[in-house]
Amino acid sequence: MISIVPVQGIPEVSQGDDLAELILGCASLEDGDVVVITQKVISKAEGRLVAFDPLDPAAPDARRRLVLSESTRVLREREELIISETPHGFVCANAGVDFSNVVDGQAALLPVDPDRSARHIRDALRARTGLELAVIISDTFGRPWRIGVTDVAIGCAGIAAVVDMRGTTDVFGRELVATEICTADEIASAAELAKGKTGRIPVVIVRGIERSWFRESSVKAEIVRPPGQDLFR
Amino acid sequence: MISIVPVQGIPEVSQGDDLAELILGCASLEDGDVVVITQKVISKAEGRLVAFDPLDPAAPDARRRLVLSESTRVLREREELIISETPHGFVCANAGVDFSNVVDGQAALLPVDPDRSARHIRDALRARTGLELAVIISDTFGRPWRIGVTDVAIGCAGIAAVVDMRGTTDVFGRELVATEICTADEIASAAELAKGKTGRIPVVIVRGIERSWFRESSVKAEIVRPPGQDLFR
Repeated sequence: MISIVPVQGIPEVSQGDDLAELILGCASLEDGDVVVITQKVISKAEGRLVAFDPLDPAAPDARRRLVLSESTRVLREREELIISETPHGFVCANAGVDFSNVVDGQAALLPVDPDRSARHIRDALRARTGLELAVIISDTFGRPWRIGVTDVAIGCAGIAAVVDMRGTTDVFGRELVATEICTADEIASAAELAKGKTGRIPVVIVRGIERSWFRESSVKAEIVRPPGQDLFR
Repeated sequence: MISIVPVQGIPEVSQGDDLAELILGCASLEDGDVVVITQKVISKAEGRLVAFDPLDPAAPDARRRLVLSESTRVLREREELIISETPHGFVCANAGVDFSNVVDGQAALLPVDPDRSARHIRDALRARTGLELAVIISDTFGRPWRIGVTDVAIGCAGIAAVVDMRGTTDVFGRELVATEICTADEIASAAELAKGKTGRIPVVIVRGIERSWFRESSVKAEIVRPPGQDLFR
């Protein structure tokens, strides 16, 4: 059985805050826990905030300039929506720039290196508890063809991003040709179900994940599809 | 807290089987449970099987013809992979036709109307238990831009497919412009984590889902994005 446990009581996060300490102050971690942390509190702790005033008459222009400055390539643009590729290789709306749930007059950019952010927190949690733990940093992305957003992993440490089931056989003993499951995205989505959308629950623990999935890992290396292998870029 | 509980002991499913009865024989359902069922056992129970012999020298041609016959539009084709739109409006690999985990010499097509399939099973489970229950039928889809597959909802009954958070305010009291969360896909992904990929765990219970999300629902009406609103078709 897997449990999804929201962590209550994480205070407002500011630049320089020690997220591992904040998490340990609010949660009783257990061996094998995956700690899923919303991108926004990572960006706040890392000071990835820029001035943005939504009430300024020039806000639409400023918003577009900010998104383009965080993009390496624009895939589609329609009215206020820009679908672009970020320096990390993510394809998402508005280059992942977050204009809500930040303090007034500020927007939050994606962390520079979310895998590194995850690794730092995982290392700190592991050092202070002595437990085997993993960290996933999640963000909310849209998808083509399907309405609605879901949470996905933008950084991870200590837990496989993709589990490769190729070569294992199906129930009839024939070889499965290709089943690379993006378990990190599935864990991020599972965590979102317990999170609420007001931003008050930025940390969720997913407990009971298959222990063989715990290993060194990277969203950038495992999940980001190189443009040359992509049929939709 | 949300729990993800795999249902052990579901036997091999054949055409005409009563899935509600099989599930009740193996699981103790509780009020508010979401029962997530793999597409393949729905297709088997509904007899959505066609002859396909992977060892036949003509198999590659037969495979392509079968996929095209289940497609209303081809978006991309590269070597053995066809990304197409199905009559349901899903965009996925090989029109959702499943060539693995079916008995030898057969392939499984998607259910004709997965929302209806979910509704029938939900109605049967509810009638026999008197509990408030929901059903999601899941399948495994790839995505552009990201490596690895994840489970998504192709049919649902009794639980919102998309939860609309528009109009609720964020933690700073400003209005959230658009946050339509595809909770049905997130529940399908969460269930997959407990499922294993050998096809032996076709049913998973997700327990503890927000009760306000229980209502009449439809993947086709809520999740399938009309082509005219899609930037990638």
